[in-house]
Amino acid sequence: MSKRQLLLLSSSNYHGHEYLQFAKDWITDFLNKNNVKKVLFIPFASTKPNSFDEYTAKVAAPFNQFGFDVEGIHKFPDPVEAVNNAQAIFIGGGNTFLLLKSLYDKRLIDPIRSRVENGMPYIGSSAGTNVSTVSINTTNDMPICLPPTFYALQLIGFNINPHYLDPIEGDKHRGETRAERINEFHHINSTNVLGLREGSALLVDDDKATLIGFTSARLFRQNQEPEEFSPNSDMSFLLS
Amino acid sequence: MSKRQLLLLSSSNYHGHEYLQFAKDWITDFLNKNNVKKVLFIPFASTKPNSFDEYTAKVAAPFNQFGFDVEGIHKFPDPVEAVNNAQAIFIGGGNTFLLLKSLYDKRLIDPIRSRVENGMPYIGSSAGTNVSTVSINTTNDMPICLPPTFYALQLIGFNINPHYLDPIEGDKHRGETRAERINEFHHINSTNVLGLREGSALLVDDDKATLIGFTSARLFRQNQEPEEFSPNSDMSFLLS
Repeated sequence: MSKRQLLLLSSSNYHGHEYLQFAKDWITDFLNKNNVKKVLFIPFASTKPNSFDEYTAKVAAPFNQFGFDVEGIHKFPDPVEAVNNAQAIFIGGGNTFLLLKSLYDKRLIDPIRSRVENGMPYIGSSAGTNVSTVSINTTNDMPICLPPTFYALQLIGFNINPHYLDPIEGDKHRGETRAERINEFHHINSTNVLGLREGSALLVDDDKATLIGFTSARLFRQNQEPEEFSPNSDMSFLLS
Repeated sequence: MSKRQLLLLSSSNYHGHEYLQFAKDWITDFLNKNNVKKVLFIPFASTKPNSFDEYTAKVAAPFNQFGFDVEGIHKFPDPVEAVNNAQAIFIGGGNTFLLLKSLYDKRLIDPIRSRVENGMPYIGSSAGTNVSTVSINTTNDMPICLPPTFYALQLIGFNINPHYLDPIEGDKHRGETRAERINEFHHINSTNVLGLREGSALLVDDDKATLIGFTSARLFRQNQEPEEFSPNSDMSFLLS
């Protein structure tokens, strides 16, 4: 049985595409090759009150169209048992702080990590990608609540900055650029950070990682110049 | 003696102006009316290693030109004593998480709050404005480190979002807009949030608050439509 199956999307939305449609082939291939029929969806990044049904329905629409069933974890009396019995999980976007706090509050960190280490496929998007990494220290989200720690699922040994954004030429705004923010992180932390632009994803098959999608990615390493990687680049070196 | 003297700048940089020059008259009037000759500068938002001297020199240049002396708090053996003896303090921008963590680590929260409550003038900019409010839950910064809590100096009873940014027409990026992020905060928190655009500031004189500067501000209240306020608006209602 193959180990560690991850599909980490920068975002669920990509300009010019309906929700998750740009990732149709990736999701379909990823789940089919792992013989998955049904996906456990984790909607805890949603900040809207009582929105888990709505969010799950939004995700189920494209997944059903791709040929997969979706169940929301909030429908199960015991979320840990739901994870333990899942064929695969998908953690969607929203607020990364709220998501990570919810995963800790519901004691889901260890069960998810353990299942993924033993081969359960994991799909993440945006906040769901952030929590799959070492820590949420490189999220773009507003810190609307305080999780017990910023350390996350650590399914991979580096961080991802989803929705990575290049500086806008001639911008008059004086807030920090995304690259400057990641540079601030590297002033006090040595963890590598992969800037994943919208429309791209990282596909991890055991110890092999591949950049897939429509856009290149930018890798930030402490005390080094950032480096660009084209779609289909082998990124396995980041895993070791 | 007058109580609570605050000058809270959205940013130190404003398009088309040298560092802090757009705020020259505000800073000068604010310090002169409070008979301040020397300002204690707190550079702890800087993420760059060993950068406190450099940052203090950068701030001292315009302040000296405006007629005020500047000393960096890092030069004092006891930072609490430095705060207790200061005529006024200025907390500059950088990373809000690192700044708040440093203020807690150095046990400066209570001394600063106590001095300000007893009339010591406080100037904040960007991260220095964030920490003057109820909490840093509405900062734009990357969470590069974890402070013990997101609660801050609470010199005022609401939050500020500095560098407030309007959505960019036709933007193809699918990350959340600033307004959407503040809306997420209001899904789980009822604290008012004042979106201060670059080039503006809030001037607080005891129980009177006035919006000053070149740009209007946008006020976000839970379950209400956002409201715009022009420069020179009386914002005292936010203090009560």
